[in-house]
Amino acid sequence: MQIAIVVFDRFTALDAVGPYETLGRLPGAETVFVAERTGLVRSDTGNLALTADKAFAEVSSPDIVVVAGGPGQAALMENQPLLDWLRAADATSTWTTSVCTGSLLLAAAGFLDGRRATSHWLALDQLKRFGAEPTPERVVFDGKYVTAAGVSSGIDMGLTLLGRIAGDEYAQTVQLATEYDPQPPYDAGSPDKAPAHLVEELRAMSRFILT
Amino acid sequence: MQIAIVVFDRFTALDAVGPYETLGRLPGAETVFVAERTGLVRSDTGNLALTADKAFAEVSSPDIVVVAGGPGQAALMENQPLLDWLRAADATSTWTTSVCTGSLLLAAAGFLDGRRATSHWLALDQLKRFGAEPTPERVVFDGKYVTAAGVSSGIDMGLTLLGRIAGDEYAQTVQLATEYDPQPPYDAGSPDKAPAHLVEELRAMSRFILT
Repeated sequence: MQIAIVVFDRFTALDAVGPYETLGRLPGAETVFVAERTGLVRSDTGNLALTADKAFAEVSSPDIVVVAGGPGQAALMENQPLLDWLRAADATSTWTTSVCTGSLLLAAAGFLDGRRATSHWLALDQLKRFGAEPTPERVVFDGKYVTAAGVSSGIDMGLTLLGRIAGDEYAQTVQLATEYDPQPPYDAGSPDKAPAHLVEELRAMSRFILT
Repeated sequence: MQIAIVVFDRFTALDAVGPYETLGRLPGAETVFVAERTGLVRSDTGNLALTADKAFAEVSSPDIVVVAGGPGQAALMENQPLLDWLRAADATSTWTTSVCTGSLLLAAAGFLDGRRATSHWLALDQLKRFGAEPTPERVVFDGKYVTAAGVSSGIDMGLTLLGRIAGDEYAQTVQLATEYDPQPPYDAGSPDKAPAHLVEELRAMSRFILT
């Protein structure tokens, strides 16, 4: 069983690390970070760099595909090496998944036409352009396609999918091992819950960030 | 303002990435991943490698120190370069913090004697050896020392500390931007909540892992 986590320049680190730390604990699974070329891939802040241990050409038939999101996604919407690899990998994958704006890359590859899907709340509407049905839930299953909302939601997606594959008890063990008993100091993690003026401020900023 | 996140061979990736993705969004802050030597540092699973962009010698007076945990911590409890750097950095830091078993390294450096502190639930008792008072809470403040529980708790620690430094509204904005509205599929993230037999199984396994 191979899990391929797709990363790219200006990805959001937690998008990739959430599923890695949960789903990646699947017994017997090999998790690989994959990009067009091997080597360092730097995150959106510029302060973190992960290694892509494998290039697309070296990962031909992963069982599970996880596509991270982040500001770098916008530049990849017509990137042929990425879209070609996604289509080939998806042809034989058991699950094809994304976190945050990674779902826009799944959509660009043509996977989400007519399907329910989610994304970062600021990017949700963009799914419509590709025929997907924006679904403001944290983790959305539609057939073998699993999309997660913004950034931190990949932890919930990873545990949920882990439970489907390895059983509830195994997923609970991973939740316990990672001490995932969240206690955020605020209840501001979604646009429905955050103070309205903060939602509007971020929405205004996003016009410059998410192009 | 400089935030130094200490990583090492066999660290747990989410321990480091949780604070990076939250606290690291502090306005005007530079976040650096630091290790004894620059270059790749591989995580506990072996499947993820981060770059330490700076060596200890290059980071002399960070404002905030964050020490990650993970199985690699055990081999470092008497590591002089690390302990020397921690003591020098702590002498001028505003906040000295840890996630997971990173608190055992803070304890080994002598910072937690007589202080309340937390750690991964499986390692909590080990704090006593260093005169600390094990405190089974998710985020524990004692003076300028902030310790977080296992792995995922670094997200809560990062947001909490961000709020103290940059104000509640700024921290809420980061929570909203990272869509940190956790919805775990199970309620098994702490030993009080998980099924008892899973807690016992992990405890038995940990005798081999946490040496």
